Amino acid sequence: MNFASDNHFGASAQILGALAAIGQAPQPAYGNDAVTARVTQRLCEIFERDVAVYPVINGTTANSLALATLVPPHGAIFCHAEAHIAVDECGAPEFFTHGAKLVPITGKDAKLTPAAIDKALAHFQKGFVHHAQPAAISLTQATELGTVYTPGELAAIAALARRHGMKLHVDGARFANALAGLGCTPAELTWKNGVDVLSFGATKNGALAAEAVIFFDPQDARDFEYRRKKSGHLLSKMRFVSAQLEAYLADDHWLANARRANALAQRLAQGLAAAKGVTIAHPVAANAVFARMPAALAKRLRAEGVLFYDWGVPDGDHVVTRLMLSFATPEEDVARLIELAR
Amino acid sequence: MNFASDNHFGASAQILGALAAIGQAPQPAYGNDAVTARVTQRLCEIFERDVAVYPVINGTTANSLALATLVPPHGAIFCHAEAHIAVDECGAPEFFTHGAKLVPITGKDAKLTPAAIDKALAHFQKGFVHHAQPAAISLTQATELGTVYTPGELAAIAALARRHGMKLHVDGARFANALAGLGCTPAELTWKNGVDVLSFGATKNGALAAEAVIFFDPQDARDFEYRRKKSGHLLSKMRFVSAQLEAYLADDHWLANARRANALAQRLAQGLAAAKGVTIAHPVAANAVFARMPAALAKRLRAEGVLFYDWGVPDGDHVVTRLMLSFATPEEDVARLIELAR
Amino acid sequence: MNFASDNHFGASAQILGALAAIGQAPQPAYGNDAVTARVTQRLCEIFERDVAVYPVINGTTANSLALATLVPPHGAIFCHAEAHIAVDECGAPEFFTHGAKLVPITGKDAKLTPAAIDKALAHFQKGFVHHAQPAAISLTQATELGTVYTPGELAAIAALARRHGMKLHVDGARFANALAGLGCTPAELTWKNGVDVLSFGATKNGALAAEAVIFFDPQDARDFEYRRKKSGHLLSKMRFVSAQLEAYLADDHWLANARRANALAQRLAQGLAAAKGVTIAHPVAANAVFARMPAALAKRLRAEGVLFYDWGVPDGDHVVTRLMLSFATPEEDVARLIELAR
Amino acid sequence: MNFASDNHFGASAQILGALAAIGQAPQPAYGNDAVTARVTQRLCEIFERDVAVYPVINGTTANSLALATLVPPHGAIFCHAEAHIAVDECGAPEFFTHGAKLVPITGKDAKLTPAAIDKALAHFQKGFVHHAQPAAISLTQATELGTVYTPGELAAIAALARRHGMKLHVDGARFANALAGLGCTPAELTWKNGVDVLSFGATKNGALAAEAVIFFDPQDARDFEYRRKKSGHLLSKMRFVSAQLEAYLADDHWLANARRANALAQRLAQGLAAAKGVTIAHPVAANAVFARMPAALAKRLRAEGVLFYDWGVPDGDHVVTRLMLSFATPEEDVARLIELAR
Repeated sequence: MNFASDNHFGASAQILGALAAIGQAPQPAYGNDAVTARVTQRLCEIFERDVAVYPVINGTTANSLALATLVPPHGAIFCHAEAHIAVDECGAPEFFTHGAKLVPITGKDAKLTPAAIDKALAHFQKGFVHHAQPAAISLTQATELGTVYTPGELAAIAALARRHGMKLHVDGARFANALAGLGCTPAELTWKNGVDVLSFGATKNGALAAEAVIFFDPQDARDFEYRRKKSGHLLSKMRFVSAQLEAYLADDHWLANARRANALAQRLAQGLAAAKGVTIAHPVAANAVFARMPAALAKRLRAEGVLFYDWGVPDGDHVVTRLMLSFATPEEDVARLIELAR
Repeated sequence: MNFASDNHFGASAQILGALAAIGQAPQPAYGNDAVTARVTQRLCEIFERDVAVYPVINGTTANSLALATLVPPHGAIFCHAEAHIAVDECGAPEFFTHGAKLVPITGKDAKLTPAAIDKALAHFQKGFVHHAQPAAISLTQATELGTVYTPGELAAIAALARRHGMKLHVDGARFANALAGLGCTPAELTWKNGVDVLSFGATKNGALAAEAVIFFDPQDARDFEYRRKKSGHLLSKMRFVSAQLEAYLADDHWLANARRANALAQRLAQGLAAAKGVTIAHPVAANAVFARMPAALAKRLRAEGVLFYDWGVPDGDHVVTRLMLSFATPEEDVARLIELAR
Repeated sequence: MNFASDNHFGASAQILGALAAIGQAPQPAYGNDAVTARVTQRLCEIFERDVAVYPVINGTTANSLALATLVPPHGAIFCHAEAHIAVDECGAPEFFTHGAKLVPITGKDAKLTPAAIDKALAHFQKGFVHHAQPAAISLTQATELGTVYTPGELAAIAALARRHGMKLHVDGARFANALAGLGCTPAELTWKNGVDVLSFGATKNGALAAEAVIFFDPQDARDFEYRRKKSGHLLSKMRFVSAQLEAYLADDHWLANARRANALAQRLAQGLAAAKGVTIAHPVAANAVFARMPAALAKRLRAEGVLFYDWGVPDGDHVVTRLMLSFATPEEDVARLIELAR
Repeated sequence: MNFASDNHFGASAQILGALAAIGQAPQPAYGNDAVTARVTQRLCEIFERDVAVYPVINGTTANSLALATLVPPHGAIFCHAEAHIAVDECGAPEFFTHGAKLVPITGKDAKLTPAAIDKALAHFQKGFVHHAQPAAISLTQATELGTVYTPGELAAIAALARRHGMKLHVDGARFANALAGLGCTPAELTWKNGVDVLSFGATKNGALAAEAVIFFDPQDARDFEYRRKKSGHLLSKMRFVSAQLEAYLADDHWLANARRANALAQRLAQGLAAAKGVTIAHPVAANAVFARMPAALAKRLRAEGVLFYDWGVPDGDHVVTRLMLSFATPEEDVARLIELAR
């Protein structure tokens, strides 16, 4: 029973089928193929505007290339202290940006607030050559703690970004889950509320290795293509990445997968909340459940073969556990886990 | 009729089938999976020693990460002036090494010789802080002009590298083609003759996006894993890359593909050589044919739908054309091209 | 009346005289001169062991080169959130280290404690490729708030560094002031209590542009010289930097300068503490006085021509002001400032 | 008798005197001082237009910062194969530009020609993401072989640069010598003939450690100031660098020094040319003499205490020697060397 990570699961049959369908016939290389063109077109439709689309293989790359395109080496990127870019990418954003500074900001439920960002900004004087210069805000949607930013929250942060001449990046490794949870449109969850660039995730939600960097103003993409090439992320047979995205977007496969994972998360959260000594640590708005439980219970679950991570520092004899739900998590695993917890 | 590039073709049925077989079941992420372990084991067998194996998605990445691991920012890398790393990677090696210097060396048939390297080395004083410090030699096998280094030639270059405290890297984007052409063992074409690290290619020879960096002395791999992670090249679902390599190596699929492409190259070269005004510009030792022909003929072929690149600067009313043969090039295309050329 | 910064003052007559004495006669370039050799020898005596000495022009460079030599691109550097390297160098350490991560830690009086570092370390898993790897602790001596680390405090932090395989760097832009305040030996304030590398400052204490990076174990210096050259910090006429250091160290000039500045700081602190509504915000252990005072008083002082900075965010109608004392601050300016404050 | 390098000599009395005159009084730090303002003004007069001026400590830094400001990481810089930036800066331009590519071009007398640059450019396809993108031409004035570019030659290269959207940088470590040799105005030797940015040298011609980066269109300077700060080259007591430049420019001190060195070079060249077996290898247009002589003679001169470097690879029993003349080379040393050679 794997609740350790949504990236432990493989790829969906639809997406694997799309790869097989590509076959061995020749097509132009390096993204100049028909599949990549179709995916770009499809994303323009989905986001209701002309966007610049760059397929890449994973989220670390999407985030790093997006940020490096918008942030100079002397720039500062404001993000949550628990953001994936800050803690789980081994300094990839610093590598791609040639040394820009990530400014970690604490906040409830892994969410940034305008007030918290404002407070952090107070340490940076504009045009003062000794200080890194505020260049971007990066937030994660859904967050690392399974919470989401509402369109209104996005708009407030975007307004702050604008006032300070910063760009707004969204790490959307679980964008589909956030969208499914919020029930708004992709446009509302991005550019209509001020998002400049999105790391549009697919890998955790059914693809093998596919994300897209989406610039809502294609002008912002500037030298992205050179950065992608220089960092080894321009694939010769790019259509195999694009085909994943095409299948992901076809027939609302992406939303169906996300809804399924989210629904399982709701079911699991409700089931666990009813168990003795278990509380849900953060609002469950996407496909993650953070359950605070007795360490003894966590130990017992592991003994039964349940895989999951503890999160943060143990607190007396309780631990906070992270339980991830995936497009492919068997329903019976959820039922069985609830049963075990009771 | 696509003779433009071996990377224009898609992926072989065996390799696509291997991806489908992975399915959606969970496995540990980031290369800690069973498939990756099996591929590593298989490559140890093939190369007849314990090697360190790191799957990546393409050749630019394999080359850049291999070199960055062995070469400090103040190091110099000696390579042919026509090497892929020097001319076709937009400075990726410089990016990954944080600014090491590629020293381009000219030479016949895109091949380095000990004498030419020695001459270039004369400009670099060891321990002299003003000079970049010689750190690695990188050669391409098969070369960008479809020629190969014999084991003896490798050994001579490796001996030079040792004398100067340099490492020897091989860009093996077409390693299988070189091997098939030379008929020696993988070990003979690498560590037995002094190669330290190999970019072991699969993408051009039947995979979607898969290569392996192979360090013949695992000690040399040092901080490779951090470099791969920081550059976005550690995939969460790494088994989908490893599975390509596994299928590639199974049942000599890689060698069969390479032999097929090489045989087509021989056939094409012989056919073209018999055409009026056509000469073969470089020895055909792998899967590339460089045919010097009247510009009018090249034009006529293109009008018939034959895709290929001109190579280098036109020479009067003749051009040198590059004709690449692939694992998937239809035999009839070769026959048809010969026919058209006559 | 300039209390804005100790780096606003020029250079002492002794040090300027040493430059004049160099004259125009030829000597070997790039540090291979007699003056540099003598300074190295003198620092070995002062620190009571063989040390590796590299003159550079300023503190940002000394810090960045020292850290880049010890910390890989995937490394993490633990420092106080108010450390000069974290907030006032525009990301220079990130540039020189090719993207290592500075981990800012809060703490009273701009000082790190083992407990606070330990808490920060809990977020970094050793050998876990997704996390930046703890590589160094950097502390400032005297700190940015004019406080100092005692030898015992250093030893405790050094012990922690050792346990975690990290190096200990000291930003000693005001090392002389710390030493003068503590009254111990240079060796006690460094390697005898676990410091690995020191940015030994002179610029703020009487030189024009001179610091020395001192590695207490010369083995640690590794490729420092290439890094200094590549970053433009190897001067051809290095003896003009070394001559500043030689004069700085001669006849205890450095300590005399520091004692003078420290004594003025004590006098100023006592004088201000007696003024109505003024309190001293941090212990005065070196040459800085942080005085909390009514904003109206600060305004009045400025109107009288007193130069100084406010520090941090205003607190109601009070501000914290930073008043720096220098080797060259006129005594009468101190007396006058006290008088004005009363 | 030192003919090894013009940077072996110390600093002129005028320049050392200017430092002493600064003294210890406070002034604003980081270049916001009166001296720096005056130097900027003076250079605007000398170059007959509003220019952006940034003092730095040496030529490697001036070159690297100038190029990094104009060339993106994916850019290519075309320079002579013997250019200082290519062979004597240990990869500093690559470090500052984050990995841009230097394209070495061979040519007589260390000079670039439009034809040679054009030939090199043929290998770079504009907008082709696999190729580094031509961004700048860098030439050295006077060259590393003591030759100069005439205003007409500059204009031709600048025209080529414009056609290809490239900027033109001049490494003017010996700009004064070139100017003195050519007898034109500073404006004619720079922007009036298409130069965009100049590394204006002073160190080799009488200063301790001072150069200025001069952008002829201040718009080009863009984020220069952040780059200077991040690389440790913004000095707190910048006026000590600016004061060197001020004294250097006062009363034509710079031109007098250069004329003196150039005149000594002429005298030495004529004297040596008359010696048996000695020929002058390159036109003597500045302060360097390259004399081809019997190895036995070179050996004998060294035995007499003459310091100089051999240049390039020995040629049978002859060597090419480089003899540098400086603002401070004693006249009698020149006379004595000629005598010894006869």
